[in-house]
Amino acid sequence: MTETGIVEELRAIAGAQHVLTAEEDLLAYGYDGTWYESRPLAVVLPGTPQEVSAVHRLATRERIAITPRAMGSGLSGGAVPLQNSLVLGVMRMNRILEIDEVNRVAVVQAGVINADLQREVEARGLFYPPDPSSLKQSAIGGNVSENAGGARCLKYGVTGDYVAALEVVLPGGEIIRTGGKMVKNVTGYDLRRLFTGAEGTLGTITEITLRLLPKPKFTRTATAAFSALEDAAGTVTAIIAAGLGPTSIELMDALTIGCVEAHAPSGLPLDADALLLFAVDGDDEGLVEREQQAIVELAESRGAFRVQSAATQAESDRLWAARRSISPALARVRPHKLGEDVSVPRSAIVPMVRAVRAIAERNGLLIPIFGHAGDGNLHPNILCDRRDPEEMARVLVGAREIFEAAVALGGTLSGEHGIGLLKKQFMELALGADALAVMRAIKAAVDPLGIMNPGKMFPEPGGISAFTL
Amino acid sequence: MTETGIVEELRAIAGAQHVLTAEEDLLAYGYDGTWYESRPLAVVLPGTPQEVSAVHRLATRERIAITPRAMGSGLSGGAVPLQNSLVLGVMRMNRILEIDEVNRVAVVQAGVINADLQREVEARGLFYPPDPSSLKQSAIGGNVSENAGGARCLKYGVTGDYVAALEVVLPGGEIIRTGGKMVKNVTGYDLRRLFTGAEGTLGTITEITLRLLPKPKFTRTATAAFSALEDAAGTVTAIIAAGLGPTSIELMDALTIGCVEAHAPSGLPLDADALLLFAVDGDDEGLVEREQQAIVELAESRGAFRVQSAATQAESDRLWAARRSISPALARVRPHKLGEDVSVPRSAIVPMVRAVRAIAERNGLLIPIFGHAGDGNLHPNILCDRRDPEEMARVLVGAREIFEAAVALGGTLSGEHGIGLLKKQFMELALGADALAVMRAIKAAVDPLGIMNPGKMFPEPGGISAFTL
Repeated sequence: MTETGIVEELRAIAGAQHVLTAEEDLLAYGYDGTWYESRPLAVVLPGTPQEVSAVHRLATRERIAITPRAMGSGLSGGAVPLQNSLVLGVMRMNRILEIDEVNRVAVVQAGVINADLQREVEARGLFYPPDPSSLKQSAIGGNVSENAGGARCLKYGVTGDYVAALEVVLPGGEIIRTGGKMVKNVTGYDLRRLFTGAEGTLGTITEITLRLLPKPKFTRTATAAFSALEDAAGTVTAIIAAGLGPTSIELMDALTIGCVEAHAPSGLPLDADALLLFAVDGDDEGLVEREQQAIVELAESRGAFRVQSAATQAESDRLWAARRSISPALARVRPHKLGEDVSVPRSAIVPMVRAVRAIAERNGLLIPIFGHAGDGNLHPNILCDRRDPEEMARVLVGAREIFEAAVALGGTLSGEHGIGLLKKQFMELALGADALAVMRAIKAAVDPLGIMNPGKMFPEPGGISAFTL
Repeated sequence: MTETGIVEELRAIAGAQHVLTAEEDLLAYGYDGTWYESRPLAVVLPGTPQEVSAVHRLATRERIAITPRAMGSGLSGGAVPLQNSLVLGVMRMNRILEIDEVNRVAVVQAGVINADLQREVEARGLFYPPDPSSLKQSAIGGNVSENAGGARCLKYGVTGDYVAALEVVLPGGEIIRTGGKMVKNVTGYDLRRLFTGAEGTLGTITEITLRLLPKPKFTRTATAAFSALEDAAGTVTAIIAAGLGPTSIELMDALTIGCVEAHAPSGLPLDADALLLFAVDGDDEGLVEREQQAIVELAESRGAFRVQSAATQAESDRLWAARRSISPALARVRPHKLGEDVSVPRSAIVPMVRAVRAIAERNGLLIPIFGHAGDGNLHPNILCDRRDPEEMARVLVGAREIFEAAVALGGTLSGEHGIGLLKKQFMELALGADALAVMRAIKAAVDPLGIMNPGKMFPEPGGISAFTL
């Protein structure tokens, strides 16, 4: 069938106004939160799972690739449409279908925005813990596809832990439901977890049933400034080892603090080599305060030179706003940034930050370090200018060395952003050839024509030596 | 190769003393916690993952089936060796390899006994929450294979939530590791969750890295006796809806209480139609007591006629010992019992117990109901005599109606015991044909020769109409 014929059929499926082919639309749907870009064949925005299914059947029949997409805020290139694929955008499917307070679940369509769900459930005294911190405007479907985490994982876990059920359109168009509102379910293979984090390579997620929790009555925030990054990192390990249970421990190094203060002044300490931001929550005010006090004392005993507890909600909000401003602030320092997402055992936080600093120095790179240190999940961001080939050669080496350091420390490539394009050449390093072969076999079994999100997650021939940016 | 040749080669792999072929050994390794039995070709007890791998390679070359087995306490027939398969017992691999207090994980071989691990980690102030309540002597590897739950799931979740990493021998003998000590990991498909709960149909699990938690400092136990089972069930739903967070809510109906008191007298109230057993834990004594008090008051307001808090640890231990004695007590009432494991949304606990009682009455069956009511996970046990064909015809109908009721209420076949032989004919009812087809495709992709634990999980032709006991 001709391209025109395909577009005609898409229009018949989703309505003419929901099929985009203008050059500016193809550009707008051709990128994500990375610097990767690729022009799609067309953009289709179905309004129902049945329309998604019809798009899949058309793509199957015509051997066209499909790249599922939500808000496009992903940080690994996962939603960039390769191989002249269709972009299948789920953002019109944005209804909160049900908030079931007895079973404590919300049933949402894939295009529901995080902040919208959060507001609705909080109005009922509940909350949805996964908090893609700087991504309040990201969509649930996209986060589930990546199994994205956020700033509250330390206490509450990642997105995948909250997925009770999924509605998925399989590559060939079959609509399946996996999971349900029940708490325990060991009926057959765990397809919920398989499709969660599959980055759209096994099907299109159209509906998600999410577990909710009662919203904690009290939260507290504190900061601790250190004159040595390694002391801050060591404090994180010590807090975990002491059995303390904060909601989150966020780390910002001096470079990060400097960038934030230059572009979004927030009163962060410019005299610190590193800052830790702690949150504690719970239903008993005394307990929350005791927990915070214990953390503060531990930070002081590990060398923090200034420790401050947020006295008011406004002060706490200001600190978290500063945390959320990191990514936009870093984006203003140099023309481009390469954001990594390595995850290491919490005992390895000190050697990991040490390794990143050494990599930056050795390669003459600017690499601010921040992230969810309490989870062992760090975001070294390599700031650079893509138009400078000499610099990009060093960026390539630096990125590769960061991945290799994480794996050598018992960690992995991605804690929450997924593999996409950015990390796929390192999959064998991280997983080993045999585990990767299992994943390839599963991909071939579920998507035998290879039409779902081609070019993502699995390495091209050449492995690490074929890594480019 | 002849059977003798195979046995010779197994002896060369694992040592002659670790290959069993005597009739009494074949009998001893031919059953599990159900009434199913099947004679294996031979029993091999490897001592290392490398020996497991060698057994897999032999089986692959000779097209022999393998049934992995740990303690054989499973309740769905999953470890019963069908199709003249080898039993591959992991119980010699019973070392706790590491307890890493900083990263809060234990690395154990598949044959480690639950109670042994629990004792070791508790000595370090930690605990491993999954608690296969009546199965203290079950092995970690078996529980992980089934994704078995237990009495603490309500607060702490099931086994699968605690699996940080697995070492798995793939059908063809490749040894892979999936996961690690890191908290967050979204690198590729979630193989950890796929192999967890796969019931040995995709490979043999040889090593497990388990997350641990700080052991709660305080625990409290209370009971509430009701004169109507439905009031007890409604209390469970109300406790969850009220946002209270007990560790567990266990239910026993009058039939269950009667059986326990007849065979293991524990002072349970014989005048109750149902008893709820609550546990609460935490690090703050006042908070734990307030939580318990809130639960007690809620139970009273919902019609409990007698509520008692365990005043001493001994009294609490006695109550939990009574809970653990249910299965052995029921086994003494009639010659056989068929234990089910349905899981329903917590809003559906009342209609589920109502349905089971109606099914019992309609079919003239004795079906005590107990289980992890707080999770919506109930164990209706059909007591019967397998030698009575007329009774077994009614048991067959009753079992089928229980599955159908659970699915109709938005629930599923198994909350923690797995599918095995017992529930496989109901898989399409529970999952739908398309989701089941995805599972079959995954099975064929990972185990193309179909040598791993044949005859389990996937239905034989005929579906429900071919259900037999």
